[in-house]
Amino acid sequence: MRFLPDDLEVQAGEGETILEIAARAGIVLRGACGGDGTCGRCLVLLKNGAVRDRDGDVIAEPGTALRACRSYPVGDPVIEIPQTSRLAEHQVLTGEGEDGLLGAGASDTGAADDPLLARVRLSLTPPEPGGIPDDWGRLQAALAGRTGQPVNADLAVLCDLPAVLRAEAGAVTVDLGLESGPGAKVVTVRAGHTAAPAYGVAIDLGTTTVVVELVELEQGRTVGTLGTYNRQAAYGDDVISRIIYAAERPGGRRQLQEAVLDTVNSLIGELGRRHGISPEEIRVAVCAGNPTMTHLFLGVDPAFIRLEPYTPAANFWPLCRAGELGLFLHPRAPVHVLPGVASYLGGDITGGVTVSGFGAGGEVTLFVDIGTNGEMVLGDGDWLVGCACSAGPAFEGSGLSSGMRASEGAIEQVGISAGGFEVVYRTIGGGPPVGICGSGLIAALAGLTRAGVIDRAGRFVPGLETPRWRRTAAGEEFVLAWGRETGHHQDIVLTGADIQNLLRAKAAIYAGVRSMLAAVGLEQDQVARILIAGGFGRFLPLRDAVAIGMLPDVPRQRYAYVGNASLQGARAALLSRRRLAMIEDTARKLTYLELGEGTGFMEEFTSALFIPHTDLSLFSSAREEGAYADRGGR
Amino acid sequence: MRFLPDDLEVQAGEGETILEIAARAGIVLRGACGGDGTCGRCLVLLKNGAVRDRDGDVIAEPGTALRACRSYPVGDPVIEIPQTSRLAEHQVLTGEGEDGLLGAGASDTGAADDPLLARVRLSLTPPEPGGIPDDWGRLQAALAGRTGQPVNADLAVLCDLPAVLRAEAGAVTVDLGLESGPGAKVVTVRAGHTAAPAYGVAIDLGTTTVVVELVELEQGRTVGTLGTYNRQAAYGDDVISRIIYAAERPGGRRQLQEAVLDTVNSLIGELGRRHGISPEEIRVAVCAGNPTMTHLFLGVDPAFIRLEPYTPAANFWPLCRAGELGLFLHPRAPVHVLPGVASYLGGDITGGVTVSGFGAGGEVTLFVDIGTNGEMVLGDGDWLVGCACSAGPAFEGSGLSSGMRASEGAIEQVGISAGGFEVVYRTIGGGPPVGICGSGLIAALAGLTRAGVIDRAGRFVPGLETPRWRRTAAGEEFVLAWGRETGHHQDIVLTGADIQNLLRAKAAIYAGVRSMLAAVGLEQDQVARILIAGGFGRFLPLRDAVAIGMLPDVPRQRYAYVGNASLQGARAALLSRRRLAMIEDTARKLTYLELGEGTGFMEEFTSALFIPHTDLSLFSSAREEGAYADRGGR
Repeated sequence: MRFLPDDLEVQAGEGETILEIAARAGIVLRGACGGDGTCGRCLVLLKNGAVRDRDGDVIAEPGTALRACRSYPVGDPVIEIPQTSRLAEHQVLTGEGEDGLLGAGASDTGAADDPLLARVRLSLTPPEPGGIPDDWGRLQAALAGRTGQPVNADLAVLCDLPAVLRAEAGAVTVDLGLESGPGAKVVTVRAGHTAAPAYGVAIDLGTTTVVVELVELEQGRTVGTLGTYNRQAAYGDDVISRIIYAAERPGGRRQLQEAVLDTVNSLIGELGRRHGISPEEIRVAVCAGNPTMTHLFLGVDPAFIRLEPYTPAANFWPLCRAGELGLFLHPRAPVHVLPGVASYLGGDITGGVTVSGFGAGGEVTLFVDIGTNGEMVLGDGDWLVGCACSAGPAFEGSGLSSGMRASEGAIEQVGISAGGFEVVYRTIGGGPPVGICGSGLIAALAGLTRAGVIDRAGRFVPGLETPRWRRTAAGEEFVLAWGRETGHHQDIVLTGADIQNLLRAKAAIYAGVRSMLAAVGLEQDQVARILIAGGFGRFLPLRDAVAIGMLPDVPRQRYAYVGNASLQGARAALLSRRRLAMIEDTARKLTYLELGEGTGFMEEFTSALFIPHTDLSLFSSAREEGAYADRGGR
Repeated sequence: MRFLPDDLEVQAGEGETILEIAARAGIVLRGACGGDGTCGRCLVLLKNGAVRDRDGDVIAEPGTALRACRSYPVGDPVIEIPQTSRLAEHQVLTGEGEDGLLGAGASDTGAADDPLLARVRLSLTPPEPGGIPDDWGRLQAALAGRTGQPVNADLAVLCDLPAVLRAEAGAVTVDLGLESGPGAKVVTVRAGHTAAPAYGVAIDLGTTTVVVELVELEQGRTVGTLGTYNRQAAYGDDVISRIIYAAERPGGRRQLQEAVLDTVNSLIGELGRRHGISPEEIRVAVCAGNPTMTHLFLGVDPAFIRLEPYTPAANFWPLCRAGELGLFLHPRAPVHVLPGVASYLGGDITGGVTVSGFGAGGEVTLFVDIGTNGEMVLGDGDWLVGCACSAGPAFEGSGLSSGMRASEGAIEQVGISAGGFEVVYRTIGGGPPVGICGSGLIAALAGLTRAGVIDRAGRFVPGLETPRWRRTAAGEEFVLAWGRETGHHQDIVLTGADIQNLLRAKAAIYAGVRSMLAAVGLEQDQVARILIAGGFGRFLPLRDAVAIGMLPDVPRQRYAYVGNASLQGARAALLSRRRLAMIEDTARKLTYLELGEGTGFMEEFTSALFIPHTDLSLFSSAREEGAYADRGGR
């Protein structure tokens, strides 16, 4: 069958849906429901030929809109995939300005003090009588002498070693994989002393987006960073729908693993092309992700993550090899996975917490990572407690009518005038807008509240005198940008449903913070430092985030925005065994709080479903700033 | 093309010789010269079709005898392989009587005190709040508690772990691979408590023969033992010709690795069939072999073994997995390779020495393993020196006109009357003879000397009045068994060339012993105990071995025959981590003596090319026994 406008020919497998066939071809469709046929995000158009639906009825009318997850090709149909059904690819996260509006946190991901891969250049003396009698013994002793570590190797390294040691009169370059503990393992040995540096990748395995950073290990220099949507998105927006897909569909686990491997491999391949570095020259990887993403990346059964008592297969993962996993690096490159703590608190958080300056100077610190889930950690470095709450992917731009991730064309800042309901905005890249990303959404919600467009319950205030407000068949909505201004000539709107979605997302985060504070008996004012991580965009509109009641109302100087902490954790470990050991220590020390039944979380959540909160005393300074009027709500 | 009488159809590859094609089809031809076309052992008959020789000449005459190593198929010829050109397969080494004529040595290969694979049956409690939060963590802690070892696993073990742990309410059977040092690695986890024991194999990788012993690990019981010719024999009789083949033919190394893997795999498969045990149920292997065999088995470049200063790629080998190697066991089964000392002293010797009771009670002990090479070790357990000399494969029955290995139909004992030149013999199995094996060859050489058929230089005494002596186109020969008595209706003979071959073999061994004694400043009489290992057959005819000057003339009670010490070493390590550690210790302590230029070895060798020796004072008790007359010689 064929896909337009990509003009890709693909062979359909037995019983494969068009969604699955497209995914195999690298075309990732939106699919919030995980292929259940309920979300209608994966609509495609039949251009030619025929398809069959689930009931076996054949559809052959050109132009018919089909749900890709429910349609099966008959013969070789031609299918057009509209841009709106498609997740974007290969959008660059430059990292530029990632330190944000609030200034960088005390991130310590810096230079390569002791990277997980050491390139060692040796000149071995020839074997001599009375010396070490074997080639591997001589190399092993020289490496142990240089590194102070016991050194081992896989058999494959030894197969051609004798000729390699003699090709350049004993001069060899050895790439040596290291761990947080003692011991080193030879990855490769080649003849001669190469001047080239060794490369590694840090990989952030996000539910919605995947980011790969290519790092030159000897200087610790970032060569390039590239991110894209996780191709698993075709199988469900959130971790729960993906776990169900993996656990219940035959071959589902393997499909999801391949989807994320394809995503990572395409990023590695593109980084390699752009910077002239063969993937085979990349000799080590460190991955950070939430536990579900980690399980699926490694091909491990995630089924029990979502079933009480929420048990992950593992928190600490065995070191594996790129070739064993199907990762597009040198096949013997070690792949480290940062350790997690519980089913919903993973290596993205342990890494992020450890490298963000958390608990520096013994201060009580709150770390909040806002992604598809909201994960947070409270502590002073000696003690740490953590929890996770399902915030949904709203702040990552998913699940909203005009949402998008922080990339070119995204509205990242919004202001709304109180009187004339005029809207000013700024887009990433400065061009015409095509959607709105996390930072823009927070600002818009705050702006609509300040301007009196919505009340404290997030409902449109009756009798608004502006054409920007309108009622459609689907409900009420507010136009942020008119089609004449936008890149795709469609209005960019926030609907009533979008606003409720955002309210639930921000309420989950604040309720998590409150629950954790309650568990350790602290008030929010006792928190000396708040570190915010996540993918809002290039900055966090902090004043607005407090104004809508997403984050605690404490003095602003206590806040720092640390950007993509997951990637920073992976990068820091890549460049330092000491950092990796610290991350492992964090994972061992952290106490996980389950926010389930009977923990008070649900009451906190319900109380937080207002702007900013039912208890206005928690947001008194925001009120003074005019962030909200005391009307509506309870 | 097709092979008869096997009636096998095989696709010929580009540029492959008939020798190579036959080897791929599992038909192993004799080939002493390693495919150089000089030995003429691989003769085959053209039945139909045509072949091409090295010069490109086409031969199409049916019935033509061809050297398989020099012939290439043209189209699809039919080739008949005579039994005489073929190495036998799947002959059983029962081990019966392996303790021999002299009584068993103090071999300590006994019960399973701490095998390299432990089958652990656990009942895990369900995950509980406050307990270890992840599945692998719970299993790891339970295993560490049971074994007192830190435990790790490959990623593949974790993939389905969550479901396995829950299938039988937490009851699991774990196969745990162990090493000589601390640490354990999970090989498999399955649901439920299996009553079945775990199995492992000990593998003796000999140049001429390969033996596999299948062992039930919980009781240390041998299930079965099976040996056969090493299929590498098609590429050369001795280690040097195989090294040349591996190093100089494109793909040669891989061909030789596949040949020995095929040999081992066919033995494992046959053992499994006979005893109803699936190879997948075999979860660990220990291999012992000389360094060349070890390199070729592991696919490691052996080229520098034969070039000064004779450097092996490794003496201590990384643990590898059966699947990685292509061994027909559970793919994650650990494969241990016993460590060697130098290019011509390998794990067969370190293992054999360690388990044979060497140096027990601090006695100065001499260990001599007589195979294709003669390897020997001298010491008292605290100090050890070792050396190797090329004895040739004569005592393994190879390279002689009527030689064969110790299997059904081999003449294993011979007596020759002095007067009438009458010959009495005994065969293995008691049936008609088809050849003569190592023990028979030693007895025959001693008998011919005692009977006055040959002189001290091994030459036939002129004017022998017996039809058993005759002169042929190829030279003189002595008939040990007439065609009317034999299983193949051909005379079994010893030719003058055979006798010279045997003389060189016995001289190499004795010269090695003398050189080593000289190196440490001991006289042969100071050796308190002599342990003999090797493949002569079911016993060592000690009196005859001393009579021909192969072994030192010391009181007979100092001798013990220990049989296949290589296999015993592998078996002992399989059943005991402590034994494996002792073998590793032996390998580290042993000092290797190079018997090359300027070491006195060549003079010793020349002096030993007489029966029993040029210096008769070394064999005075043998002379008193009438083992030889003082005539002939220099």
